[in-house]
Amino acid sequence: MRLDPKTLKFDRDGLIPAIAQDEESGDVLMMAWMNAESIRATLDSGRVTYWSRSRQALWRKGETSGHVQLLVEMRIDCDRDTLLLLVRQTGPACHTNRRSCFYTAVGKTEEYELMGPMY
Amino acid sequence: MRLDPKTLKFDRDGLIPAIAQDEESGDVLMMAWMNAESIRATLDSGRVTYWSRSRQALWRKGETSGHVQLLVEMRIDCDRDTLLLLVRQTGPACHTNRRSCFYTAVGKTEEYELMGPMY
Repeated sequence: MRLDPKTLKFDRDGLIPAIAQDEESGDVLMMAWMNAESIRATLDSGRVTYWSRSRQALWRKGETSGHVQLLVEMRIDCDRDTLLLLVRQTGPACHTNRRSCFYTAVGKTEEYELMGPMY
Repeated sequence: MRLDPKTLKFDRDGLIPAIAQDEESGDVLMMAWMNAESIRATLDSGRVTYWSRSRQALWRKGETSGHVQLLVEMRIDCDRDTLLLLVRQTGPACHTNRRSCFYTAVGKTEEYELMGPMY
């Protein structure tokens, strides 16, 4: 095992935040959560697999949409309580069909959209 | 007020994760937490201000180290439960004096460091 999840700091729900970044463009695509099992699944398969807090189940990204994330590199922060995933993203990362979930900017007077849906 | 924190989704501790990204290089620098008060302080001052969970107090980034983060743009994700901060970082973002907190990569057999301390 190349990473023992026991060496990471999970929150009281057994979860750790995972930031997905497009390895080519550098765009931050999304933030979701992982547990020990999803970390193992991600490293073993090379397919990014989160933990769905709403469904309380493994969430193999793109399983139904086809918008998969291939893991290029997993990084750990200094406190070992946050993960950064460099990924190769197929299609949009966001369920709104936008490339990134962070498509809303806080402007000086109001919010505005930085990008529209890909299709 | 250009952003009403009431429109965001905070966790049961009243916190929301905030990812800091270097606006020039695109590097993800760190992830920390904000509450409504720290969001207001960040937008009002243009100086990124987190909520320190260990100290249970506002954490005006760089206040003691001088390694301040100037806010270039705040972004909100589709679920409104995560923030992305594009920042101009002075010096290292990490308390280990590394540019980014994500300096540890998970290799095929072991972890390795991607960067050393700046000084």
